[in-house]
Amino acid sequence: MSNSYRLVMACEDRVGIVAAVSGFLAEHGGWILEASQHADAANGWFFMRYEILADSLPFDLDGFRTRFAPIGERFGMEWRIADAATPKRVVLMASRLDHCLSDLLHRWRSQEMVFDIPCVISNHEDLRDFVEWHGIPYHCVPVPQHDKQAAFAAVSKLVDGCDADTVVLARYMQILPPDLCTKYAGRVINIHHSFLPSFVGAKPYHKAFERGVKLIGATCHYVTEVLDAGPIIEQDVIRVAHDDTVDDLVRLGRDVEKSVLARGLRYHLEDRVLIHGNKTVVFD
Amino acid sequence: MSNSYRLVMACEDRVGIVAAVSGFLAEHGGWILEASQHADAANGWFFMRYEILADSLPFDLDGFRTRFAPIGERFGMEWRIADAATPKRVVLMASRLDHCLSDLLHRWRSQEMVFDIPCVISNHEDLRDFVEWHGIPYHCVPVPQHDKQAAFAAVSKLVDGCDADTVVLARYMQILPPDLCTKYAGRVINIHHSFLPSFVGAKPYHKAFERGVKLIGATCHYVTEVLDAGPIIEQDVIRVAHDDTVDDLVRLGRDVEKSVLARGLRYHLEDRVLIHGNKTVVFD
Amino acid sequence: MSNSYRLVMACEDRVGIVAAVSGFLAEHGGWILEASQHADAANGWFFMRYEILADSLPFDLDGFRTRFAPIGERFGMEWRIADAATPKRVVLMASRLDHCLSDLLHRWRSQEMVFDIPCVISNHEDLRDFVEWHGIPYHCVPVPQHDKQAAFAAVSKLVDGCDADTVVLARYMQILPPDLCTKYAGRVINIHHSFLPSFVGAKPYHKAFERGVKLIGATCHYVTEVLDAGPIIEQDVIRVAHDDTVDDLVRLGRDVEKSVLARGLRYHLEDRVLIHGNKTVVFD
Amino acid sequence: MSNSYRLVMACEDRVGIVAAVSGFLAEHGGWILEASQHADAANGWFFMRYEILADSLPFDLDGFRTRFAPIGERFGMEWRIADAATPKRVVLMASRLDHCLSDLLHRWRSQEMVFDIPCVISNHEDLRDFVEWHGIPYHCVPVPQHDKQAAFAAVSKLVDGCDADTVVLARYMQILPPDLCTKYAGRVINIHHSFLPSFVGAKPYHKAFERGVKLIGATCHYVTEVLDAGPIIEQDVIRVAHDDTVDDLVRLGRDVEKSVLARGLRYHLEDRVLIHGNKTVVFD
Repeated sequence: MSNSYRLVMACEDRVGIVAAVSGFLAEHGGWILEASQHADAANGWFFMRYEILADSLPFDLDGFRTRFAPIGERFGMEWRIADAATPKRVVLMASRLDHCLSDLLHRWRSQEMVFDIPCVISNHEDLRDFVEWHGIPYHCVPVPQHDKQAAFAAVSKLVDGCDADTVVLARYMQILPPDLCTKYAGRVINIHHSFLPSFVGAKPYHKAFERGVKLIGATCHYVTEVLDAGPIIEQDVIRVAHDDTVDDLVRLGRDVEKSVLARGLRYHLEDRVLIHGNKTVVFD
Repeated sequence: MSNSYRLVMACEDRVGIVAAVSGFLAEHGGWILEASQHADAANGWFFMRYEILADSLPFDLDGFRTRFAPIGERFGMEWRIADAATPKRVVLMASRLDHCLSDLLHRWRSQEMVFDIPCVISNHEDLRDFVEWHGIPYHCVPVPQHDKQAAFAAVSKLVDGCDADTVVLARYMQILPPDLCTKYAGRVINIHHSFLPSFVGAKPYHKAFERGVKLIGATCHYVTEVLDAGPIIEQDVIRVAHDDTVDDLVRLGRDVEKSVLARGLRYHLEDRVLIHGNKTVVFD
Repeated sequence: MSNSYRLVMACEDRVGIVAAVSGFLAEHGGWILEASQHADAANGWFFMRYEILADSLPFDLDGFRTRFAPIGERFGMEWRIADAATPKRVVLMASRLDHCLSDLLHRWRSQEMVFDIPCVISNHEDLRDFVEWHGIPYHCVPVPQHDKQAAFAAVSKLVDGCDADTVVLARYMQILPPDLCTKYAGRVINIHHSFLPSFVGAKPYHKAFERGVKLIGATCHYVTEVLDAGPIIEQDVIRVAHDDTVDDLVRLGRDVEKSVLARGLRYHLEDRVLIHGNKTVVFD
Repeated sequence: MSNSYRLVMACEDRVGIVAAVSGFLAEHGGWILEASQHADAANGWFFMRYEILADSLPFDLDGFRTRFAPIGERFGMEWRIADAATPKRVVLMASRLDHCLSDLLHRWRSQEMVFDIPCVISNHEDLRDFVEWHGIPYHCVPVPQHDKQAAFAAVSKLVDGCDADTVVLARYMQILPPDLCTKYAGRVINIHHSFLPSFVGAKPYHKAFERGVKLIGATCHYVTEVLDAGPIIEQDVIRVAHDDTVDDLVRLGRDVEKSVLARGLRYHLEDRVLIHGNKTVVFD
């Protein structure tokens, strides 16, 4: 497949945005592979994502940035452009449960999803063998109750040291400290094992069982300083019944967690997610 | 179709319950059309529902009750038997929005669902014409802010006066007072326009929009004294996206409300729902 | 809500289409409420739909058409523009089963969906009362086995006589003759009670029961001369199990038919469907 | 968890079956953990599955068989009893695509699903490393176009040699010869990458793309001599749209294939599937 650039922008809505951007592209022969817009009437905000055939343009990414900057400025845009050929660098974090990690590793090694995994970080040793079989470095950073600060300093150092774009909490089971949430804002993706905002916090399957809900779910969201309250990227549910025990809920939920995290991460990797306030625009 | 009896029971679990009940039926030539059991291991409780061909038994409902009573006593059962040929009497309550009411009326007049509607009660006049076209009495009982007590006394009198088994709050938009919740415990079915326990209370679609969820839902539940916290009978969801406004959520949600209420009510009418604590067993 | 125009176009894909169209709009102060594009790489075809705030433009629909025509010509576009304030005129056709008709009438009278119903045509008298209660003319045109030609000539005359844009076969149960399919190409919408292409033709629920499928479905599609083979607008399914009889399938399927037809018709009414070959682009 | 026996039976329906079986169990102190019945009125056939606490019975599996035989004979039952503690022996067959295989291996090694894998058989070498990392023997049996007979003789020898109960075609991409279908009737499970009976045979995603369906699916079924026509165990679908290419369909479909195969196999492993004619009863 031919290579593409992904241009993503957001700004106050007004007449002429699409004309300016598409006019710029047409002027330089840019071939639009995919175009998505969203006008948020409630907030007067405009969002756009263009996927452009890289070879159709007479300049590279830096050339694009230089030439497009005046348009960005004119409309007061927040914008970025990414080369689809440059895989994002994603640190995966897990604990002992490996269903989400294992699912992502399969999508990675089968090249269903294209990204680099500079390393996996876990607070336990359990998953080392499986991860290392893939040729991926594995770092075990225990998180002792009495000294979480040092542990997360080590985690942060690892993430920075491998030049990661994104951190995925693939059922990591530890709460990231606020300073890391801030430092990596918009770059840490969590999978929560409930249909948020129901059952925030720990043991959501137990809470769901107690409440007697007839569907359970999972939520993929960006991590913020407020627990389980960050912008939601993707959610899904599965039906349960009175004869499902908590163990059944845990088992059924795993499949939802896997697919919701994989879909959410895919949107993120393909620059399809725009965060605005505490909500997301997802151009799927 | 041949007529059937529905035998529903619950008791502490122990060896011999199924044998005793099915042995009783076999002894009298009872033909089992449908059988459902559930052993709740967490609570040590057992639930059962048998649908029996009425004509296969040598006695009528009263005869059944007399002969079965010793078994019920032996196992300390809560049990009841209903004749499928005797439609339940269901009072429908609505406000101005008629999508749920209209949906139920169609299922009733097309005989998709078999029940009697002794009357419709509303706090507004809006739906009178449509209801009366069906030949169903329509009572408008306004619920003024300053005198809700008198209004609900009138409602209760109407419900009692028409010998209703069940009351359905088909988007009635008023909160039933605690004394009525208690009086009609296990007999009042509400449709809540959210996926409970998310967004309890008023304006759930607005709350869902604010939170940026990717699915919205509806919940059919028995009404208890605690708002939106009664035993859940049925739930479902529908996908929404960033370009859906609150109005879109309201519109999309209506279809979920209709089908969830209809399914929940069907389970109730067919004696498929057993309440236990704050949860339900639904033999669908 | 403010009024809008819907501009819909399709043409061979090339550089500059979006720039030309959005440039034209920007030049005249046109405020884009909603924009959708699709580049079909397999066929080299481009599709676009813009929803534009009517009041933001300095000319009316005719003025738009005159000024936009050169752009349409330059790109060899098939294009059309519609005023959202002008409801489409939709003839509903039904037989004896009224679940789809009743569902659409509720959406119409509650103004959930905005369209005119110049008349309902049926081959039976059964639904007259209910339709006429809405103040809608009802025409009964029997379709005798031996003289279908005359019947369909009468149907066609009625459709033409009321200046209908669209005909909806809401479980009409009769096969439209090829000449009418051709005459009203792209304007007749059918709901088929199976997940096409499974179980084409009559009695799909019986066939589904025989095959033992675990999901049944419904398909909303444009009618063409080839039975049940026209472009699909929308589909959905519902889960069934071994204990569902054919009657259960029919019952469960009704709910899917209703929602699939309503969604498909909504897309059509809002000019969200573009037919290309035997497939559709649906900008939902 | 305590161990259990699974008693599964089917016979002509008549009065007294449940009484006889549950009476037998009660007489010996058998504690029923789970009970499911289905009376197929159309065929006059009765199906039942009991899960019984093993320790509650005073005899072992052989003792059960001896004592229960007269009841089986009296009602002309087809019946079997299995010890949940004895994992089924499942040969997995795959080709080059490993999403289903990888998914099942994870469920196996995490003990989400309990079964033995005596070996994996493939017509290619590609998956050897991954399988052998699990400590599972891997047999590569190429299936040359000109000599499929010898290849399948080798496959059959391997299956027989490891005393397998069940063979799973996890996207094996080869058609089993009729003699093996017969030999292993009711024991070979296939995952077909379409919502059968739509798109039987090869390249279903291409066919789905051509037809323009709005949902694609997968089907888990028992293999019979008629291609893709055996009894269906489980099916599911996922939504697609006009902007999904064939590659997208293949990608989206993989997730459905994985979960449908896993659910179908789970039902089979837990003795929840009863084949009757060309349909299944699934006590899920």
